[in-house]
Amino acid sequence: MMHQTTKIHRTAGELAAFLGCELRGNAGTKIAGVASPERATSEDVIYLESPRHFERVLKSRAQCLICPSGAGVAGKALLISAEPKIAFARAAGWLIPPGPIVDGIHATAVIAASASVAGGVSIGPYAVVEEHASIGAGTQIGAFCFIGRGATVGESCRLHPRVTLYEHVTLGSRVIMHSGAVLGADGFGYATDREGKHWKFPQLGALEIGDDVEIGANTTIDRGSLDVTVIEAQVKLDNLVHVAHNVKIGRRTLIAAQTGIAGSSVIGNDVVIGGQVGIGDHCRLEDRCVAGAQAGIPSGKVIRRDQTVWGTPARSIERFKKQYGWFARLPEIAERLRRLEQPKPESL
Amino acid sequence: MMHQTTKIHRTAGELAAFLGCELRGNAGTKIAGVASPERATSEDVIYLESPRHFERVLKSRAQCLICPSGAGVAGKALLISAEPKIAFARAAGWLIPPGPIVDGIHATAVIAASASVAGGVSIGPYAVVEEHASIGAGTQIGAFCFIGRGATVGESCRLHPRVTLYEHVTLGSRVIMHSGAVLGADGFGYATDREGKHWKFPQLGALEIGDDVEIGANTTIDRGSLDVTVIEAQVKLDNLVHVAHNVKIGRRTLIAAQTGIAGSSVIGNDVVIGGQVGIGDHCRLEDRCVAGAQAGIPSGKVIRRDQTVWGTPARSIERFKKQYGWFARLPEIAERLRRLEQPKPESL
Amino acid sequence: MMHQTTKIHRTAGELAAFLGCELRGNAGTKIAGVASPERATSEDVIYLESPRHFERVLKSRAQCLICPSGAGVAGKALLISAEPKIAFARAAGWLIPPGPIVDGIHATAVIAASASVAGGVSIGPYAVVEEHASIGAGTQIGAFCFIGRGATVGESCRLHPRVTLYEHVTLGSRVIMHSGAVLGADGFGYATDREGKHWKFPQLGALEIGDDVEIGANTTIDRGSLDVTVIEAQVKLDNLVHVAHNVKIGRRTLIAAQTGIAGSSVIGNDVVIGGQVGIGDHCRLEDRCVAGAQAGIPSGKVIRRDQTVWGTPARSIERFKKQYGWFARLPEIAERLRRLEQPKPESL
Repeated sequence: MMHQTTKIHRTAGELAAFLGCELRGNAGTKIAGVASPERATSEDVIYLESPRHFERVLKSRAQCLICPSGAGVAGKALLISAEPKIAFARAAGWLIPPGPIVDGIHATAVIAASASVAGGVSIGPYAVVEEHASIGAGTQIGAFCFIGRGATVGESCRLHPRVTLYEHVTLGSRVIMHSGAVLGADGFGYATDREGKHWKFPQLGALEIGDDVEIGANTTIDRGSLDVTVIEAQVKLDNLVHVAHNVKIGRRTLIAAQTGIAGSSVIGNDVVIGGQVGIGDHCRLEDRCVAGAQAGIPSGKVIRRDQTVWGTPARSIERFKKQYGWFARLPEIAERLRRLEQPKPESL
Repeated sequence: MMHQTTKIHRTAGELAAFLGCELRGNAGTKIAGVASPERATSEDVIYLESPRHFERVLKSRAQCLICPSGAGVAGKALLISAEPKIAFARAAGWLIPPGPIVDGIHATAVIAASASVAGGVSIGPYAVVEEHASIGAGTQIGAFCFIGRGATVGESCRLHPRVTLYEHVTLGSRVIMHSGAVLGADGFGYATDREGKHWKFPQLGALEIGDDVEIGANTTIDRGSLDVTVIEAQVKLDNLVHVAHNVKIGRRTLIAAQTGIAGSSVIGNDVVIGGQVGIGDHCRLEDRCVAGAQAGIPSGKVIRRDQTVWGTPARSIERFKKQYGWFARLPEIAERLRRLEQPKPESL
Repeated sequence: MMHQTTKIHRTAGELAAFLGCELRGNAGTKIAGVASPERATSEDVIYLESPRHFERVLKSRAQCLICPSGAGVAGKALLISAEPKIAFARAAGWLIPPGPIVDGIHATAVIAASASVAGGVSIGPYAVVEEHASIGAGTQIGAFCFIGRGATVGESCRLHPRVTLYEHVTLGSRVIMHSGAVLGADGFGYATDREGKHWKFPQLGALEIGDDVEIGANTTIDRGSLDVTVIEAQVKLDNLVHVAHNVKIGRRTLIAAQTGIAGSSVIGNDVVIGGQVGIGDHCRLEDRCVAGAQAGIPSGKVIRRDQTVWGTPARSIERFKKQYGWFARLPEIAERLRRLEQPKPESL
């Protein structure tokens, strides 16, 4: 079921060396892929993170297991790790390196004479690279990608088919972009006069994407208006996310699908934002805060570091739970109130 | 106003035969299209489902009406149906077969030598069909479509321009995909280590789309991570819907625009999900349940079969209405409480 | 940081004449761009709208300021305007006219022989213009755009790369469309029979976009089913907005990102809709009403002119605030209720 473009045969011993793990059992156990316990063949590596999944692991045909010390599974080669899921993710990247998006530069790619294309770059059919754009070494540009005038793409990036970079957008290195993502479109800004006519406010700013960022399918990130929109290193955005003009997103922040961030909001480092969250303009989400799915953060609001918020308007999860608990008991409250209002027998 | 590529002239009698309906009135009434009562010409078929629209039908220039028995409209050819809207939809498909997305295989289509293209396939300008992909008989692939390595498209599918199938995605037959849809991108999965670094979790699973599925514009469906994302037959997804990795959606389920479903959730058969609904990861929505627009279903939640839920967090519509009714009366409750707290005159 | 394709040098005096503003100070002050106060060079124009930003303006290197009368900034050329932000937006459009999306008609554009292309039209690489389509004078069509059969694009439109117009969609003049937008896909309409089978309801209607409309990246607007979807002049839609079949949106209405409007709803003129708002089918939002971000407007609901609504289900902002204020105090209400329920000492 899994489609590996390159199947590399390794051994459990080699994987232990790569991961820097202790190995228990047969170092010569052959491995060639990764899988879930149920789908694994004898050559797949699996992992055990939580005791909850112990039974699944026991029944698996896999012969090589990444698990914490003391997991107590007999008959398999064990790679001992305090963070088995991380080790498994690293093992997967090592055993199954991502296949090429495209090989070489396709004859139909339209590349401006003034564009700079480094060594080892692949560009797919019908991709367009405009004047003065620059593509770093080892980067892959899929079919139908559009790299606008003066845009800069770093090294070893992977742009899946049909990605649009407007002019002068800059990407760091090792950025992954999925199909349909649009970077650098005009922000949504107008000045409305007394007759109600909307004048387009200048959307002339930049958009800078850091290293190791991943951007999901059909996600849109607008350029700054007079300022810069910045996505820092290691940020991961899911599908259909919207990031407006002048937003800053700090390092390693995770944002799930369909979340929208309005203009000039500043998101800190290591923030986690659930799906369908709405963040108004000029908000500040400090480092390591968490916004639960569908939360709504009103314009100008500050969420303090390490705080977890839920609901619309967003408040701390503790307050949300207390308030919501009573909300669910409103019919009961109303009934208790009604009883209190009835004249007491003894007052008759 | 309606743009029919092929105008076919038929009669009311021929339509009655096609639909298997009783005909009352002139079987020779000429028909050539379908319309709303107001926009109909004398050659358009219209329908009457609810008595509410009786006046509109009476005033219409249409000479051929699909209606329930006993609708009592004189002077028109009547096609008697217990389900007039269904009969009308079928009549439309028969009178106005969908026009071709593209005719023939365009000279600019880039089709890998190892791809398999069946008879009667049309492929538009600048479409790309990668190695080992397979296109079933009678399928139409619009301009700028990208059919990834090893992807399989069934028979008589209609892919509008600019659809992306990542490698190894499989579509059943008669699937309709609208422009901008992205199938098979990587799911949003990372393992975060103690330093906060996000390691990309393998996204190597499959994506399988059943027969007769329709997928709206700019909708995204991710491949499985170690498992399979499955959309079963006759599922209909509106625009800008997000379906995460490992999700299963059962037969005939309908999902309105901008709804998002997080990883590993399982949606049953004949489920109806409104617009902008958010479904957390590992939820289970059983057969025939209904989620109202903007509902939020928390991670891990089970919605029982035939249940209708509203709100965030989602609860049964009955509870929602009761709770919300009291919510709207909170200022009144507060006032009643204040009065009770006041010392009673007789205690003075 | 700002990337102007054409740098035009002007003077403060020339700008005052263009804007019809009073000028105070040196009419010969050279200007060549616009900026925020912090990023301005001595050749950039800045503006001051609110006294809050007075300090920023004082510190700026800019030598030319648009400000209200009496702003009292010495040492700069002042352009006096009662609406400085509007004047600034107009100044930006005059100093930095939008650069070309594309120059000339690229050799790889596929243009049907029956298509009509007016003078001064530019069409980018790999764009496709289908039979009987029509492109008005001075319009620019970016790379990978798809202009379907019989579609009409007015004059001086700007279609950024990778826009899809399905067949017979009509655009007015000076329309701006951002990358990934899809106009005219089939609406989400089915008739479900007693066995649960969904029959595709005809989606044969039109889609008409007025003059001066701007449409954000990856936004989708469906064609009518038997009717017409209409977006009137000067409407501005942000990114990832969804507009369903048969919707009408009145002049100058603004709709922020990720909002969805279900079938047949009618939105008036000068309406303002926040981000992530959900509007059910057959709603009516009258002129100048406002829907706050994430509001949910149930099917069939009418919002009266000039009303502002918040929340789900949407209600007037006044009621929302009162109800929500008590919601936040529910734990307190419950506690006060508990105290009232306790037997009073004197009754003992």
